[in-house]
Amino acid sequence: MEGRGPLNNLLQSIEPVDPRWIERAEARQCQLTKPPGSLGRLEELANRCAAIQQTLTPQIRRPTILVFAGDHGVCSEGVSTYPQEVTAQMVTNFLRGGAAINALARTGDIRLEVVDVGVANAIPEVRGLIRRRLAAGTRNFCREPAMTKNEAIAALDVGIELANHAVDAGCTLMGIGEMGIGNTTAASAVVAALAGLPAETVVGRGTGADDACMNRKIGAVKRALDLHLRHIQEPLDLLSRLSGFEIAAMCGCCLAAAARKCALVVDGFIATASAAVALQWHPSVKDYLFLSHRSTEPGHSRLLEMIGQRPLLNLDMRLGEGTGGALAIGIIRAAVAAFTEMATFESAGVSDSAGPKPGP
Amino acid sequence: MEGRGPLNNLLQSIEPVDPRWIERAEARQCQLTKPPGSLGRLEELANRCAAIQQTLTPQIRRPTILVFAGDHGVCSEGVSTYPQEVTAQMVTNFLRGGAAINALARTGDIRLEVVDVGVANAIPEVRGLIRRRLAAGTRNFCREPAMTKNEAIAALDVGIELANHAVDAGCTLMGIGEMGIGNTTAASAVVAALAGLPAETVVGRGTGADDACMNRKIGAVKRALDLHLRHIQEPLDLLSRLSGFEIAAMCGCCLAAAARKCALVVDGFIATASAAVALQWHPSVKDYLFLSHRSTEPGHSRLLEMIGQRPLLNLDMRLGEGTGGALAIGIIRAAVAAFTEMATFESAGVSDSAGPKPGP
Repeated sequence: MEGRGPLNNLLQSIEPVDPRWIERAEARQCQLTKPPGSLGRLEELANRCAAIQQTLTPQIRRPTILVFAGDHGVCSEGVSTYPQEVTAQMVTNFLRGGAAINALARTGDIRLEVVDVGVANAIPEVRGLIRRRLAAGTRNFCREPAMTKNEAIAALDVGIELANHAVDAGCTLMGIGEMGIGNTTAASAVVAALAGLPAETVVGRGTGADDACMNRKIGAVKRALDLHLRHIQEPLDLLSRLSGFEIAAMCGCCLAAAARKCALVVDGFIATASAAVALQWHPSVKDYLFLSHRSTEPGHSRLLEMIGQRPLLNLDMRLGEGTGGALAIGIIRAAVAAFTEMATFESAGVSDSAGPKPGP
Repeated sequence: MEGRGPLNNLLQSIEPVDPRWIERAEARQCQLTKPPGSLGRLEELANRCAAIQQTLTPQIRRPTILVFAGDHGVCSEGVSTYPQEVTAQMVTNFLRGGAAINALARTGDIRLEVVDVGVANAIPEVRGLIRRRLAAGTRNFCREPAMTKNEAIAALDVGIELANHAVDAGCTLMGIGEMGIGNTTAASAVVAALAGLPAETVVGRGTGADDACMNRKIGAVKRALDLHLRHIQEPLDLLSRLSGFEIAAMCGCCLAAAARKCALVVDGFIATASAAVALQWHPSVKDYLFLSHRSTEPGHSRLLEMIGQRPLLNLDMRLGEGTGGALAIGIIRAAVAAFTEMATFESAGVSDSAGPKPGP
């Protein structure tokens, strides 16, 4: 396991957010021309951005969503209503600008980076793809580990590399998203293992499974847990045995973002599962994460409870790709704009609740 | 009441949204490269915009938030923790770009128009103010009607005029917001009268009332209901006796937006109270409204139940000014972008859940 050295160094560089910065930001919020607390969660968002950036003038610069694509061996168990080639087809769609995440990123002025970290089918040469393909999809975890430990480390490293690259380019707010037919099944297995829950309570309909498909999903997760649970001693076991290349890469992003003190917006069910594994490695990763929305997948609510953070949005979305994160970036940007651009009671000559104040 | 002719004409021109356009939009959503329904409420938003604009290529153009400011005679009952001059001071702050709504509108690329429809104190000559001041605030509704019927009609007309102007200028998504010290008390009285609820259940802490202030608010609403309730036979009685200039103007915006087939984003408690009065005039106004967020004011949840629409956001906000609407405009813009810019399964050569399809 010679590949672990860099990961251990990364983990050692993760620090909790300094609560004194939160207090300073809260004090600043009280000077702004609004009743204290009246911007609700926008204040909480801005205060945390201030604490992460260790400044009362935080900036949202170069927001970037990294979308990782990978395929899943468990698809051979019939766990999805879509054929596996859809992963490669949708990656092509991302690169041509025709997917939901493209529209949301364009509208929200967000950079989008698309990474092949393990897609099974060939992706036609289309400009813009970041090629980090580690294998033609994972192996079927009903029969063997989805990845070797070295493959999981390599996938983590892809996420770490690209998150570092985004931060180096000036990004102060990152999003993670995914594409991978079958990956709600993998995420369900990860969540069941993490939370010690039976398969039935975490498996959902994903892209639209019917009852027969749901039964196959539940059966696949059960067999995977039976086979692997006793061998899982650390987060890397969880990733390698039950997750997928894109899930491990997103997990690497969470670790690197925290190490680099960059805010990171988590998308829905699959992305939150990857974030939950990152928290197993270092609980302070949580200080850098913003959970964007509550997916309709039942396993997502379990995850949110585990992480103990209330997501920003609840719009019945269940698409993935980073779409929830794109919306959340807009909210966080607004929160930081209010915090950094608003006048104070004193500068604007507005009387506060204690009574009139002299003008400026 | 010679002033009612134009209002009656306006009401007669309001039509419900044609459900066939909703169906056409739903059918189009199923062709886009995502599992059907997976964008959740974003699909519902886009479908309604399509139906309002009667096209499968709706556009969000020139989004504009109209902020109406007015003062309230009931302030003399000690119902707010802020002195009345704050209304004029905050209007000045809006015009100088220092308030929360300015930051949110700038970030969201939204036009902002600030209207004095009845502010008590002088607003220094600052560029950009739309001056439609009808009086130096309302009268104290604990003792007499807040406005005469003619004043209420004039305030409605201000809203109608400015909403029409926005639509004429090319706006396809409008927001309403307000500023007025004491206006949570007025909105509480309106909601109590509309919903037949006792004052205690609708009055909240507004900008931050302490217990003594809360008791004064509840007392003021009770006295107002005792005095006026038996005289309220139509929406205009409700507006003139219990509301305020800015509330009546926002109500006018809702009516005009519906008549002009323009989508309108409702902000929090006060704005929703004005929208609820508009619905009393014509139930089809609802088809054009998008409720942006759930305020922490207890009366707001009552209003939302009455209107029967689930707001888009729940971020514990309670500021007003149109701030919730500004965030909602971002969500609606994203929803419409996804609807109009995404590729179809056919055009992108993506297999749908029925199996592989030939490429383009």
